[in-house]
Amino acid sequence: MENKLKLINEMAVDNGSKIVMLVMDGLGGLPLEPGGPTELEAARTPNMDALTARASLGLSDVVAPAFSPGSGPGHMSMFGYDPLEVLIGRGVLEAMGIGFPLTHKDVAVRANFCTMDASGNITDRRAGRIPTEECAKRVEVLRQIQIPGVQIFVEPVKEYRFVLVLRGEGLGANIPDNDPQLTGIPALPIVAEDSASEKTADILRQWWAEANKLLAAHPPANSCLLRGISKDPGMPRFPEVFKMRSAAVAVYPMYKGVARLVGMDVIDHNGETPAEEFEVVRQHWDEYDFFFVHIKKTDSYGEDGDFEARVHVIETVDEALPILLALKPEVIVITGDHATPAKLKRHSWHPVPVLLAADSARFGVPGKFGEALCLHGTLGRIRHVDIMPLALAHAMRLGKYGA
Amino acid sequence: MENKLKLINEMAVDNGSKIVMLVMDGLGGLPLEPGGPTELEAARTPNMDALTARASLGLSDVVAPAFSPGSGPGHMSMFGYDPLEVLIGRGVLEAMGIGFPLTHKDVAVRANFCTMDASGNITDRRAGRIPTEECAKRVEVLRQIQIPGVQIFVEPVKEYRFVLVLRGEGLGANIPDNDPQLTGIPALPIVAEDSASEKTADILRQWWAEANKLLAAHPPANSCLLRGISKDPGMPRFPEVFKMRSAAVAVYPMYKGVARLVGMDVIDHNGETPAEEFEVVRQHWDEYDFFFVHIKKTDSYGEDGDFEARVHVIETVDEALPILLALKPEVIVITGDHATPAKLKRHSWHPVPVLLAADSARFGVPGKFGEALCLHGTLGRIRHVDIMPLALAHAMRLGKYGA
Repeated sequence: MENKLKLINEMAVDNGSKIVMLVMDGLGGLPLEPGGPTELEAARTPNMDALTARASLGLSDVVAPAFSPGSGPGHMSMFGYDPLEVLIGRGVLEAMGIGFPLTHKDVAVRANFCTMDASGNITDRRAGRIPTEECAKRVEVLRQIQIPGVQIFVEPVKEYRFVLVLRGEGLGANIPDNDPQLTGIPALPIVAEDSASEKTADILRQWWAEANKLLAAHPPANSCLLRGISKDPGMPRFPEVFKMRSAAVAVYPMYKGVARLVGMDVIDHNGETPAEEFEVVRQHWDEYDFFFVHIKKTDSYGEDGDFEARVHVIETVDEALPILLALKPEVIVITGDHATPAKLKRHSWHPVPVLLAADSARFGVPGKFGEALCLHGTLGRIRHVDIMPLALAHAMRLGKYGA
Repeated sequence: MENKLKLINEMAVDNGSKIVMLVMDGLGGLPLEPGGPTELEAARTPNMDALTARASLGLSDVVAPAFSPGSGPGHMSMFGYDPLEVLIGRGVLEAMGIGFPLTHKDVAVRANFCTMDASGNITDRRAGRIPTEECAKRVEVLRQIQIPGVQIFVEPVKEYRFVLVLRGEGLGANIPDNDPQLTGIPALPIVAEDSASEKTADILRQWWAEANKLLAAHPPANSCLLRGISKDPGMPRFPEVFKMRSAAVAVYPMYKGVARLVGMDVIDHNGETPAEEFEVVRQHWDEYDFFFVHIKKTDSYGEDGDFEARVHVIETVDEALPILLALKPEVIVITGDHATPAKLKRHSWHPVPVLLAADSARFGVPGKFGEALCLHGTLGRIRHVDIMPLALAHAMRLGKYGA
């Protein structure tokens, strides 16, 4: 266990208090014009605004200044794991994105169907972006491949993308992509970078050779490229580190996946809206001490560049917020896993607003919850990896450091 | 390459956007009296003030709180190299200060003429501060010394100071000063601290013995002391790390030297004033993606304790600024390499104002560019080593970290 996390773990006590971490994905925003509001500032959020009076506000760097985090590092840091030390591979994330139940033994690969010419050179790294149903048909074909000593799963994702999972003993994952990132040349050889990954490399070479034979009859997707070969990095389990019975309420598989990866329970539900998700929390309130609640659409609309839709999602979260507040958690944290400003249509590096409401908070000047208020908040400029320890401290769940 | 710089390098893309880094040496200042303005706050800077509306402002620690940086660490950190990990030796800096074209093979030594008595004890570590022309005469004498297997350069600097450069193969530089920092005792023996520096130590011992023979006839400067024995630390090259064609426009040799050391092109020019330097940028605009523009006099007048002269230099920079702004760089950063408050007449540890203007910036409250506005700026409190990554991010030159 990373040194600081170990200290946190040693200081942590289970006092029965409750923490809700409400994450609006990609919450951080930008004004479209000088002097204008960000998405959060433009949103009508009377409940969050009222909460600022009994909260500490701040702005937080998710990874480090200038780093635009992917969803993996964004969530790892919110969960208290230093994203510069623990990186979740693309294969693992992709498997999570489709809800594949990964185990610690599994090597996950994000694979792309591609087109190869008669001499073995790649001509299209995405096989003409074949439709998802074509992808599914070829995945069926690939499921025939069996290799002794390992269980193999192949799952379609979208268009030319699929996931390959190897399950077995002694499978390392230190193997670079065989995708050369260029056309006109062959795929790269599959080579282990350490001895623990030799077995995996050997299996992948056999699998890939078989796959090419089977796919030969199915142009344009007559070959495939293997990328992001990775395993569960084996983080210390969240419920044990922080000494809390912990649950995740999310709609999208990826976020259920990262929560499951760190050892949280993932609550099954059919909720879609923020209000429905919050109801799930209410129904399970007595079973857990910590709830991670994930709202996806703030990010999706940011990627689309839709400022107004982002504003609207934030407003629906605010409207539903009384459901969570009525449960009277000792601490409620409202933040995002990174910024996704509609202006930029992508994840960005801008520090993210954090609201931490607790009786033990150093209250500051209340006002409209948003980046400008957070810039001058009593929490100051923090790092995302400190949010969990701060939530614990404010829940009186952290003892003294040193005598 | 340092770990974080390596991540930045992996995320960096060349999208053709342009960055100007305008450095006013020693920009950070202090009010002379409680309630008074700093130099930057006292200066009339309408162009910079207008720029604050579409910029993100902050205050930056150049090395770490309480550290007053020399020019080496000041510039290394602005160029994105952690000054706590990479230190440029005094010999190398002194050689750069006189424009000596150092190569990677060279060991540079900052040397002082000194006075030694008949029994070999040092009586004056600065040889009575002999005038520069006396220094030059003795340097001529020292140029006679030849040692097989190495090329030797001796160059006068100022008063009792000169530079000695050894050029050859296999020359390490892990050798402490032979200056005992005391009088009444002999110079220290010249001893290598690792085996890679044995050859250098051997050459320096021979050279020093010869020098003493030749100087014996030239009191008061009848000996010399060797200090800051050092080499180019071999930083990863700036243009490759950040993936930008990079150029420096500076007037003083030291700053051209540090830019050359990290691999920037140094543009030859006869400009003296800020406007003339900015014209040089304009003339070479199409050839580069990154321009480091260095203004020296803000620092010089700070060392002199001349508040008003510092204010005036800042005003001439502001007047000329439209030349740079007309080029429409995607990002312009205005900052200093450290503070040199006229009140203190020296480099100081105070955090330095940073203005980062870009379309992708989180705009804050506009106003008079200065320390007070920067304290409440949306960039917050940062570290100088993060300025380059932040400039890259704002120029949309950094991809995502992690999937």
